[in-house]
Amino acid sequence: MTRLTQARIETLAREALTRHGASERQAEALAAAIAAAERDGLKSHGLMYLPTYCEHLTCGKVLGLAEPRLTRPAPAVVAVDAGNGFAHAAIAAGLPPLIEAARSQGVAALAIRNSYNCGALGYHTERIAQAGLVGLGFTNAPASIAPWGGGKAAVGTNPWSLAVPDGQGGARFVIDQSASVVAKSEVIKRARAGEPIPPGWAFDASGETTTDAGEALKGTMAPAGGYKGVGAALLVEVFAACLTGANPGLVASPFSGTTGGPPGTGQFFLAVSPDATSGGLFAGNLETVAGAFIGEARLPGTRRFGARENNVQGIEVAAETLATLEKLSGTAA
Amino acid sequence: MTRLTQARIETLAREALTRHGASERQAEALAAAIAAAERDGLKSHGLMYLPTYCEHLTCGKVLGLAEPRLTRPAPAVVAVDAGNGFAHAAIAAGLPPLIEAARSQGVAALAIRNSYNCGALGYHTERIAQAGLVGLGFTNAPASIAPWGGGKAAVGTNPWSLAVPDGQGGARFVIDQSASVVAKSEVIKRARAGEPIPPGWAFDASGETTTDAGEALKGTMAPAGGYKGVGAALLVEVFAACLTGANPGLVASPFSGTTGGPPGTGQFFLAVSPDATSGGLFAGNLETVAGAFIGEARLPGTRRFGARENNVQGIEVAAETLATLEKLSGTAA
Repeated sequence: MTRLTQARIETLAREALTRHGASERQAEALAAAIAAAERDGLKSHGLMYLPTYCEHLTCGKVLGLAEPRLTRPAPAVVAVDAGNGFAHAAIAAGLPPLIEAARSQGVAALAIRNSYNCGALGYHTERIAQAGLVGLGFTNAPASIAPWGGGKAAVGTNPWSLAVPDGQGGARFVIDQSASVVAKSEVIKRARAGEPIPPGWAFDASGETTTDAGEALKGTMAPAGGYKGVGAALLVEVFAACLTGANPGLVASPFSGTTGGPPGTGQFFLAVSPDATSGGLFAGNLETVAGAFIGEARLPGTRRFGARENNVQGIEVAAETLATLEKLSGTAA
Repeated sequence: MTRLTQARIETLAREALTRHGASERQAEALAAAIAAAERDGLKSHGLMYLPTYCEHLTCGKVLGLAEPRLTRPAPAVVAVDAGNGFAHAAIAAGLPPLIEAARSQGVAALAIRNSYNCGALGYHTERIAQAGLVGLGFTNAPASIAPWGGGKAAVGTNPWSLAVPDGQGGARFVIDQSASVVAKSEVIKRARAGEPIPPGWAFDASGETTTDAGEALKGTMAPAGGYKGVGAALLVEVFAACLTGANPGLVASPFSGTTGGPPGTGQFFLAVSPDATSGGLFAGNLETVAGAFIGEARLPGTRRFGARENNVQGIEVAAETLATLEKLSGTAA
């Protein structure tokens, strides 16, 4: 274990990305998110993912020199064509005008197409909350959940995220949840280890519940809450793919591996001004709602905020991860 | 069983409501929704609920003479103070300016406070879809779901609804789902009959799973998908209560019974113009997504649309329901 500062992780990640073909702009936006994920204890979205990002630059799943193209099709709408670059550069381009539009119009939307996996969705919605606005985000993924009772994948594990402003430049809480019972990576991990999965996580290719991780990978992921999880995935698909003009999960290429070219998936963000909609009652009501969780259970996002506080002095990085980082960034001794 | 036309049900329901103190405006908006629920086979939101509506007019849980007060705090925001009348009159007042604002701004919001149970949420979002816009709706309810792992109710069963336009003046599909595994009314029904409930529906007052319907009513409703169901309920609470300035479920009076005065809950609707956000790609993408359900499972809302088609010639009303309707409307022989 080595301790690195967030800034150091960001610098090394940026170097790794530019070394594999990303422009400064593309690398900067993604490296900031990778370092923030490490800071927040979200290891799976941090340095662990960097080799895949570099590989995807090399194989052409991501176009490292893409320039996000921003248009304003309506007063309250910001549209960004990510040009099959990283989602992060497109979102970074779109957030400032989204926030400005929400402040002047009361509510505004940011629609992103020709995009890619955006990492932790809550990273982006939290930035909307930091501007004093309620942020709601949707991002779609290659299809892996079947319609309830069916056997063929139709929609992705499609997360949505809500970030709620605390009135002091931060987020009171952040929800960031996918539509599946567990992440697909949990099933992949067990398939590789030859271990079974608990019942209820996934279905085999014939639509039956399975505890065989290998069979599960040929089948579909179980939606959280049965048909209601399918409903949540469908909600996200309508916003992140249909309303943006991005590729639906059914036709998107995989987020893993090197084949199929750019996935071309999408993101959709809404920003709402509590000042415009609540008549000054937002903060008080929010404390009533948040207060009901005190002494009962953690508010969503509490674990992230806790890790963030603990990591102010430095972030623990495993020796193997550091070795990979140094190799990818060309800083190995 | 008697067959009544939708128009006849609407007329009788309107008469019942005005006879119990509702203004023409209040009665008209609600009676149309009751008749539409009967047409769509949603009996629990139809005439079955009429005695409660009338009782709530009599006891003062609903103010029958309330005039919804509409303001425009920002170009893309419509705010309505329902004045503790029925939600339906407030929503009816807010939908036309919401739709107009979404068409000109690209996205718009309708925030309603001092409101009441709005019946089937999908009834309202579908009207947004009929205008060619994507409609997303939230409505909150008195607290009955506990934070995951906790024992005290914090948020209501809080449904959300998505209605997606079909490009021909209708809805391609309508999702309308609550955050709980089942509706609380299902537990009440079994408690009255002295029957057990299946495990997984509800928790007792100590937070343990129970199959005793009576104990469940002293406890909390189980969220669909565990903590993800709590997340969905919290999302709805933020929009329907915090962003509107309505009463959070924790302080709202019950939707049933006659005590506690007006619940003062809220609704929040978003309308998004696909033309503004999707660059002309909405319809094609929607067919890709909807097409993945064909031959696999029903798209959400299919049952409603099927009942609607079957009921064109008349809606079957049980003898007992008709007798109650005639009594309430003063048309009994």
